[in-house]
Amino acid sequence: MIEKQRGTRDFGPDEMAKRRFVEGKLREAAESYGYREVATPTIESQELFVAKSGPAVLKELYAFKDRGGRDICLRPELTLPTMRFFAAELRALPRPVKVYYYGPVFRYEEPQMGRYREFWQFGVELIGADTPEADAEVIALARDAIGRLGIEGMELRVGHIGVARALVEAAGLDEASRQGLFPLIDKKDFEALSQRLGALQVAERTRGLLLEAARFRGGREDLARFAGHLKDMPSAHDAVTRLLFVLAALERRGITDARVDLGVVRGLDYYTGVVFEFHTDKLGSESQCGGGGAYRLTDLFGMPPEGTVGFGLGFDRLALLVPDEAVPGSGAAIDALVIPIGDKDAVLDLAAKVETQLRAGGVRVERDLLGRGPSKSLKYADARGARLAVLVGDKEASEGRVTLRDLKSGEQTLLLPGEAVTRAQTILGCA
Amino acid sequence: MIEKQRGTRDFGPDEMAKRRFVEGKLREAAESYGYREVATPTIESQELFVAKSGPAVLKELYAFKDRGGRDICLRPELTLPTMRFFAAELRALPRPVKVYYYGPVFRYEEPQMGRYREFWQFGVELIGADTPEADAEVIALARDAIGRLGIEGMELRVGHIGVARALVEAAGLDEASRQGLFPLIDKKDFEALSQRLGALQVAERTRGLLLEAARFRGGREDLARFAGHLKDMPSAHDAVTRLLFVLAALERRGITDARVDLGVVRGLDYYTGVVFEFHTDKLGSESQCGGGGAYRLTDLFGMPPEGTVGFGLGFDRLALLVPDEAVPGSGAAIDALVIPIGDKDAVLDLAAKVETQLRAGGVRVERDLLGRGPSKSLKYADARGARLAVLVGDKEASEGRVTLRDLKSGEQTLLLPGEAVTRAQTILGCA
Repeated sequence: MIEKQRGTRDFGPDEMAKRRFVEGKLREAAESYGYREVATPTIESQELFVAKSGPAVLKELYAFKDRGGRDICLRPELTLPTMRFFAAELRALPRPVKVYYYGPVFRYEEPQMGRYREFWQFGVELIGADTPEADAEVIALARDAIGRLGIEGMELRVGHIGVARALVEAAGLDEASRQGLFPLIDKKDFEALSQRLGALQVAERTRGLLLEAARFRGGREDLARFAGHLKDMPSAHDAVTRLLFVLAALERRGITDARVDLGVVRGLDYYTGVVFEFHTDKLGSESQCGGGGAYRLTDLFGMPPEGTVGFGLGFDRLALLVPDEAVPGSGAAIDALVIPIGDKDAVLDLAAKVETQLRAGGVRVERDLLGRGPSKSLKYADARGARLAVLVGDKEASEGRVTLRDLKSGEQTLLLPGEAVTRAQTILGCA
Repeated sequence: MIEKQRGTRDFGPDEMAKRRFVEGKLREAAESYGYREVATPTIESQELFVAKSGPAVLKELYAFKDRGGRDICLRPELTLPTMRFFAAELRALPRPVKVYYYGPVFRYEEPQMGRYREFWQFGVELIGADTPEADAEVIALARDAIGRLGIEGMELRVGHIGVARALVEAAGLDEASRQGLFPLIDKKDFEALSQRLGALQVAERTRGLLLEAARFRGGREDLARFAGHLKDMPSAHDAVTRLLFVLAALERRGITDARVDLGVVRGLDYYTGVVFEFHTDKLGSESQCGGGGAYRLTDLFGMPPEGTVGFGLGFDRLALLVPDEAVPGSGAAIDALVIPIGDKDAVLDLAAKVETQLRAGGVRVERDLLGRGPSKSLKYADARGARLAVLVGDKEASEGRVTLRDLKSGEQTLLLPGEAVTRAQTILGCA
């Protein structure tokens, strides 16, 4: 038996209806903020991802050589491809440049609950505006997009990578030791972090501040207080000040429940400024549904550095959180089934006529294609979720009328095709 | 410089707006006939495509081994994956099962004008209804879908693969010689076909009929006449009879310009019944924009054979044929730009308030994120296609009002935020 590949999925009609609904809401949110869609290829050069993250990233990719000997891969994320495209073709646009994307990405890792080898991301990039208002807009848009899906109780955590970076810097460690600290901060393994800092003989004050930052959770006032401890460390202080401006801008936009979390450092190593994540407690251990932050990548493509803020949302996880009832019209494949009885030309002609007219009138309609007769066809109509059946037999054909049956009320009426369309629209509420 | 891969494309905002418009129209068409969307993975086993077409197909695929040693590939088309999914998970649905799909497919071939290594297909499969009405529905749906795009002058060619197959059979040739004939019929190379039939010493009558079939172009009456010559060849005669029924069903559906072309044999080897293609003379040598036909593939997946009819349309070519003017609202990224003047809290608060209210009122809106002041911001508003600007300075903030400027008429008014939303909706026609 030929089967689908491990870690990949097929999506049936109900799932696809939901996914298109979710996609539409996210798209609508992005467009309402002036973002426009771009798309990049499924296949990219490995170099695009290795350039920033180093060759270690290759072991997580679907990487292979094509017949021409080129080192290619299936894209593992969409920020770098989007920036490549921006540098190649969109760089002359007036700033800021606002784009969004939606599509599948690929990671070669062990499939497990809630993690797949092919999964979907929705994201935006705001290029060329390095201001607190720009940071706030991207966070607010992500929040708005999730809100439009009717998902409740998602936690927004906001931090600034500059705080932890500046403190690690102040610890005066070599590069390798420094890099070893971030995964511990990211995983919130404070005990291991404390031990490591002790083992590295980091000065007590720096060590205390770094632990406090990694553990820091609170609101804007708590953060302003924390800023007071950093007065003699200008770069950490600047980062906190920027974050305070962003929080103020978020509040102006009605977002008052952002939780400051200076331990948000994100897995990817290209962030340079504000960072944020969305978490839910409804998906077990896979709590993160997306996130983003500020970074600079244009120099990778031979351009001067330009501040960029973006996010990527885990589309599959968001779709899981949307209740089925929220999806309009899911389940029903059609509104009406036309049932020709017999195969006389007059019957078939009239059936085709009313089917075409119904469809032109906005009714989703199909006809019995199997010549099954009324009783089996009515069962099929029911299975397809049809509200209406249109019966066309010899009697109907001789009068040029059709029998419109409301499958909910059982009521049926003999009507001219045009009348049947109007009546169907009224019953379906799509007039 | 890191570049995109050969034969792949990036799509900018205007192109994506057009592609989403085209996708939406095709989707709408399919749903209006009761088809529902399914989706299958980008990555499939090579076996899925080799099973039917033989190992020769591998040289046209992006085929590779994954780290687990599995022979996988990027899907070159969507019919076989859809049938694999149907057999695995949809087989219990009432017949007929009607599904559609849209997504990228991949072929490893030399990129050339109008041919790419990653391209998009939109298609449907109607499973479990082997009747002339089923054939006609799928053809009519394809035709309707193309019609909804406003594309003119597309030629519809309809044939039945059974005619050429029966005549080749009658020629009494070995398998290899037989297979050699179809590409000549497909390419309409009648001279080579005639020579080959001569060289193979095919009997004169069969040879004449085969050449006549390959060359046959005409309407329903011409076909009925041709049927007269086939009375002693039951399987060819049956095929023509089926095709006559399908043409009648198409006429009932208002499709009277289908051109019978018995030389349509399609490149893929799985068709067994009616086949059809759409051709345009507007894209140079790449005239075919899609096609389909009847086939049986369920047995490949351990199920009893079931008649299926489907089509696949070349999405990229169709998008090329849609005039830019047909795409609603293309070009304009936003409706309104909010311009805060200065950075006082009262100004920023009011700017955020009116921006949020405009967006909630269905207006696509962004704000100046760079603190550029009115004159530069107005230039940006123009570049973004905005119809309106909303200015918020000290004077406005002190009154709690905003200045709404119509960038087309130049008219400007001082309004409360709520009034500004109503006025904006009126001007934009989205009230």
